[in-house]
Amino acid sequence: MNRRPSIDPDYQALLERWGEISDLGRARALLAWDERTMMPASGAEGRASQIATLARIRHERLTDDGLWEIVERLSSADAGLEPDSLEEAVVQAARRECERARRVPTDLRGEMAAAASRGESAWARARAEDDLPSFLPHLERNIELRREFGACFAPYEHPYDPLLDEFEPGMPTALARETLQRLRAGLVPIVEAVAERSDAIDDSALRGRFEVADQKRLLTGLIRRLPLREGAWRLDPTDHPFATSISDGDVRLTTRYEPEDLSFALFSGLHEAGHGIYEAGVPAELRRGPIGHPTSLAFHESQSRLWENWVGRSLPYLKGILPLLREELGVQFDAVDAEGLYRAANVVRPSLIRVEADEVTYNLHIALRFELELALFDGALEAADLAEAWRERTREYLGLDVPDDAHGVLQDVHWAAGAFGYFPTYSLGNIIAAQLWEAAAEDLGDLDEMIGRGELETLREWLGERIHRHGARYMPAELAERALGGPLDPEALLRRLRGKYGELYGF
Amino acid sequence: MNRRPSIDPDYQALLERWGEISDLGRARALLAWDERTMMPASGAEGRASQIATLARIRHERLTDDGLWEIVERLSSADAGLEPDSLEEAVVQAARRECERARRVPTDLRGEMAAAASRGESAWARARAEDDLPSFLPHLERNIELRREFGACFAPYEHPYDPLLDEFEPGMPTALARETLQRLRAGLVPIVEAVAERSDAIDDSALRGRFEVADQKRLLTGLIRRLPLREGAWRLDPTDHPFATSISDGDVRLTTRYEPEDLSFALFSGLHEAGHGIYEAGVPAELRRGPIGHPTSLAFHESQSRLWENWVGRSLPYLKGILPLLREELGVQFDAVDAEGLYRAANVVRPSLIRVEADEVTYNLHIALRFELELALFDGALEAADLAEAWRERTREYLGLDVPDDAHGVLQDVHWAAGAFGYFPTYSLGNIIAAQLWEAAAEDLGDLDEMIGRGELETLREWLGERIHRHGARYMPAELAERALGGPLDPEALLRRLRGKYGELYGF
Repeated sequence: MNRRPSIDPDYQALLERWGEISDLGRARALLAWDERTMMPASGAEGRASQIATLARIRHERLTDDGLWEIVERLSSADAGLEPDSLEEAVVQAARRECERARRVPTDLRGEMAAAASRGESAWARARAEDDLPSFLPHLERNIELRREFGACFAPYEHPYDPLLDEFEPGMPTALARETLQRLRAGLVPIVEAVAERSDAIDDSALRGRFEVADQKRLLTGLIRRLPLREGAWRLDPTDHPFATSISDGDVRLTTRYEPEDLSFALFSGLHEAGHGIYEAGVPAELRRGPIGHPTSLAFHESQSRLWENWVGRSLPYLKGILPLLREELGVQFDAVDAEGLYRAANVVRPSLIRVEADEVTYNLHIALRFELELALFDGALEAADLAEAWRERTREYLGLDVPDDAHGVLQDVHWAAGAFGYFPTYSLGNIIAAQLWEAAAEDLGDLDEMIGRGELETLREWLGERIHRHGARYMPAELAERALGGPLDPEALLRRLRGKYGELYGF
Repeated sequence: MNRRPSIDPDYQALLERWGEISDLGRARALLAWDERTMMPASGAEGRASQIATLARIRHERLTDDGLWEIVERLSSADAGLEPDSLEEAVVQAARRECERARRVPTDLRGEMAAAASRGESAWARARAEDDLPSFLPHLERNIELRREFGACFAPYEHPYDPLLDEFEPGMPTALARETLQRLRAGLVPIVEAVAERSDAIDDSALRGRFEVADQKRLLTGLIRRLPLREGAWRLDPTDHPFATSISDGDVRLTTRYEPEDLSFALFSGLHEAGHGIYEAGVPAELRRGPIGHPTSLAFHESQSRLWENWVGRSLPYLKGILPLLREELGVQFDAVDAEGLYRAANVVRPSLIRVEADEVTYNLHIALRFELELALFDGALEAADLAEAWRERTREYLGLDVPDDAHGVLQDVHWAAGAFGYFPTYSLGNIIAAQLWEAAAEDLGDLDEMIGRGELETLREWLGERIHRHGARYMPAELAERALGGPLDPEALLRRLRGKYGELYGF
């Protein structure tokens, strides 16, 4: 006879302890959000120590022997948890996270958090002043600490494995590399075909002079029409847009308003809202437990990409928002029609900045970063040589010269925050989004028509059913089987890019 | 021979542990700030649990037996700390706080924090909708928990002693009561004299229609001219203005913009900036230690009152800001002269809302609250009867009828957050401010002339020397001896009010 987990004191103790661990993590997330949106500049040093303290205590709690004993008792055969039950998933997720945490000394975790916080502040200054040398010691420190972190998980096939696993649980480096290489191979002919027809479409409709206040009102209005619960989110400006969730009723979206390029705030806003929709879709009753969060960053990114690219850059969506564009941004949109807006939103043009890249070349930016990270961690590259390697690969993949480090190696916050292993999940997320879209179309019929009718809630419900409501109940590979009907496969994305851009560029 | 504390491992361990305790407290302060300025409404439940977790863990750390052993070893005669040294003060402050914390069970602390957070959210709704019944259970729960809290400190002379001690360390209820009764006795003839001449001055100069954006620009400009470090503070709107400090370079000020009453944002803004100046003046090297904060709420309030009333409502200050008022708020200030502005800023008029009260009747609002709190905790009054008692006393002290609870018992956040024992520190702060002003005038000469020359930094330096730089090195009674030359005495405040308002109202 199985025990009843709902009244099992061990299971209750696990949830109670995990609630505390979760609160510490969410509090830390709020401190990080505040640091990047609200904090006066001179608060950086104090914030680094506060974040480090929360990270250290969270880690202590996670590695507490009493918790481990509870987890071991619950995951033993005697506990008799129903296979494939929610409770079994909760215990397995807790076990996995505790096991990983117990390998990493508390002090190292604290140092990583403090170095990340200091690194972010140093990066913001260095990027603003194009001053790589002032940032380099922070970068080196982050790499050194991540190497120490990785070493805690030896043995492994590749020293990058434990870093990638932090963001994409269970994904081996070899599989990520193979998947992303297939994607890159498929992209080459598309990028070449577009390059031959580079003046086929122009993006002037989304270029001009746009007041920040107008952009903000527009974006707020657009996010209000997305399936996100009213009064449960906010939107703030920052340097490097991100989304974070503080509780099930509290999603924080951020964006950056470019005075001459409306598409940046528009699509980064929809992107972050996509992350927020996933976070908000994890059921409240799971939130403070071991599976109360999205299952991986690639799945997270699949949601942001889906709302940004598959919904946001579609003809019916853009047609639908044209009246609001005219209302909030005035005369300059009077002469723009839906087709023109669609073409402007889908220009493919190799560029220096990842977050401004189009749907096609974006994945080349990721290839560049992923390969540099692999080289850093298998010892083929030193931090001091990173800027030069960045320039070389930018020339090779994108055909562009990097004029300064702010447009090169200093453009992203990730490494400043010690987040090595994060970048590949962006392209993996693009791949998942394409596979999801095909699956959704099978279930729901013509999605473009649905978008045209403004029925975004139907799509959110489908995603909620397939992805959101499970939280981290399933490991990414299992969720892929369940939600996509098979493993990650770049073919759906390549089909989409060939079809869409073949039509737009006429190849 | 004395040991050298800088290299004593116990002393170092104390500072290291206290750094963590301090970080947890500051993180909690940021969560509370966010809740009242930024958080989407539906984040309240999650926030309550996050704040409770941080409070519980901070309390655990503070009551840890290992910390207590360190403190006991350091405070024993063997440790040989130099009497009256900084190190001795650090150890004594740590001992006092640990001792207090060890009397209160961790679970009770967590419950108090969670009930306070839920109470604040319930209060905000109840106040907006004038719905006392929906808030009453939260109020009752807060009172019940504070009674339990107080009981942890038995025996005491008065059950209110441990509550007051939380905000005003070492101050017995009997002394606070006697001091505030002397103040009230002295106020009665002043209020009566003003009442007989109530139409002597009018405040129309500060009434009208003021755009929130204009008010915000004005107040930001005014705070920029105060002696607060540039780039180390921010100002945000909230319901019930407060100031908080997240680190030595990160002061958060808040205010509320009343569309028809400029004086509210103006003087509450200067008030909160005064709190911020004190916080920013605690030396960075003390910040994360046991004396790294202001010594008491009365001293804190003395600083806010000093900048609000003694500087902000003075003729030379108002004369100095008139050009900025004209610049930011336009034509309606063209016809106002400095004398008119001064009179408008110093109208005395009994009113229902404490935070809008003038410098004289403000203390009657405090008398009312202090006496109701005493009655609640010595058992003479139940929470359910509070609204009625409020109405009666408002009639008696202020001669006004309370039209609804939003203008009565629901107006303040304090009880919603469980902060009983806090209110008397406002009037005690007024008393200290007056004594400080007399002491500063002795040292610096004519302060009005100094303000007229815009030399606010000189005043801040003097306050820094007397008060700010010590943090909580001295208990309030000792700091009073050192900074004021004697104990708290309402005479200086009464002298000021008689003089200033006698002149303004001609009595």
